[in-house]
Amino acid sequence: MTTSITDKRVVVLLSGGLDSTSLLGYARGHVREAVAITFDYGQRHRCEIEAAKKVAGLLSVPHVVCDMTAACSTVFAGSALTSPSIPVPEGHYEDASMQATVVPNRNMVMLSMAIAYAAGIGYDGVAIAAHAGDHAVYPDCREEFMLAMDTAAGLCHYKELRIFAPFVEFRKEQIVCIAMAVHAPIEFSWSCYNGRDAHCGKCGTCVERREAFAVAGVADPTLYEATP
Amino acid sequence: MTTSITDKRVVVLLSGGLDSTSLLGYARGHVREAVAITFDYGQRHRCEIEAAKKVAGLLSVPHVVCDMTAACSTVFAGSALTSPSIPVPEGHYEDASMQATVVPNRNMVMLSMAIAYAAGIGYDGVAIAAHAGDHAVYPDCREEFMLAMDTAAGLCHYKELRIFAPFVEFRKEQIVCIAMAVHAPIEFSWSCYNGRDAHCGKCGTCVERREAFAVAGVADPTLYEATP
Repeated sequence: MTTSITDKRVVVLLSGGLDSTSLLGYARGHVREAVAITFDYGQRHRCEIEAAKKVAGLLSVPHVVCDMTAACSTVFAGSALTSPSIPVPEGHYEDASMQATVVPNRNMVMLSMAIAYAAGIGYDGVAIAAHAGDHAVYPDCREEFMLAMDTAAGLCHYKELRIFAPFVEFRKEQIVCIAMAVHAPIEFSWSCYNGRDAHCGKCGTCVERREAFAVAGVADPTLYEATP
Repeated sequence: MTTSITDKRVVVLLSGGLDSTSLLGYARGHVREAVAITFDYGQRHRCEIEAAKKVAGLLSVPHVVCDMTAACSTVFAGSALTSPSIPVPEGHYEDASMQATVVPNRNMVMLSMAIAYAAGIGYDGVAIAAHAGDHAVYPDCREEFMLAMDTAAGLCHYKELRIFAPFVEFRKEQIVCIAMAVHAPIEFSWSCYNGRDAHCGKCGTCVERREAFAVAGVADPTLYEATP
C-alpha cells in the first residue's frame, strides 16, 4: 500500500475527526489536487459533519457531503453510533464494551464510494487517515484490510486506483504532532460519539483524543464536559 | 474465492436481471438461508427494480431495496446508465462504445453495502452472479477483482465473511441452462438498459440476453421492440 501522496490527485476521506482533519491539512501541502468527501451515514454525532465542513473551508479544499442516510438505514443496524436506543459506552477503546460502537464494514463502504468518486473525476485514488491506534477495536482499520482494499481498488476500473494511508504506521499522538507541523485546524475537529455541545470526555474516542494530546505534549484545545 | 453456497446463509445481490434472477433461483435450492438485496442507484432502467421485487416474491425470498439514489447522485456521474443526457449505446458488449454504460466501481459499492448488511444480520457472506461473459467491458466483474474483494471481506469484521460467486466460470448461455434446471422465473427478469415497456433488443445487454437464449437452445420468453 502506498503511504506517499506527494504530487497525487486524491479524494480525502474527511470524517471531521482529529485524524482526518490532520490528514487533510497534511494533504494540502503535499498533493497536486485534493477533494474532501464526508459521509452522512446517520451518525448520532452530527457535529462531526459540521466540523468537516468547517475544516475543509478553513483549508480551502473543495468538499462534498455524500448523503448515505437512506442507504445506511437499510444496511447499518445495531451500532451505538447510529441507533439512538443503544447507549454510547464510556471508557477506553480497548474495552470489550466498545464493540457497541462498531458499524460493520463502514470503512469498506466509505472507501468504495470514494473510489467510485475518484474514478469518475479521474483522480489517482483515495487517502484515508487509518492509523496504528485504530486496530484494537475495528477490524476494518487494520493495515491488512487496507492492503486488501488497495488491491481491489487497483482492479476495479480501467485506470489503476490506489488507497493512500499516510498515517498507517503512526500512533495518534504522532498525528497530533504532524497536525501541529502542518497547521491543520484540529481545534475545530470533532471526535466525541455523543453529539452534544461539547466533547463528553468519557467515551472511547474522547479518552483517546485527550491521551493523544497529553502524550504528544501539546496543549489540548478541546472543551470537555467532564475530566476523568 | 468460494463458488459453493451449499448450506450457507447468504445475502444475494439481485439486480433483477437474467443472471441474478438465475442465481436467486439456484440459491433457493442450495443455501440454508437467503435474503435478496437490490440497490436503487438511480439507474434509468427502473423496470429492473420492479423485476427484482417480482422474482424475489415468486421465489419467496425476503427482499430489501436499498435506496442509494441520494448517495450515488454525488459519486456516480457520467455513465449512460444514470445520466439521462447520455444515450445508451446500441450494439455488442465488446464494442468500445459500451464503455459509456460503465458505472465506475459499482460492484465494489454494492458488495460493500451487502457485506455490511450480511455482517449486521450474522450471515456468512454475499453471493453475486458475476460470470465469464461480463469480463470484456467491466473490470469490476472479473474474477481477479472478486478475489480481491473476497480477501477484503474476510478481514473487514470480527467474523470472516465471504464473497460467493457460483457462476464465475460460466458463460451466460450456461446460466440460462441452470435457470431452466432450477425453475428460476427468468421470464420476469429485466435486462434492457432503456427502461421502456419492452426490451429494446438493441442495447448491449439485450444483444447478450438474446444470444444467450439462442446459444443455450432455450426458447426466449422476452418481448423485444426490435429484432436485429
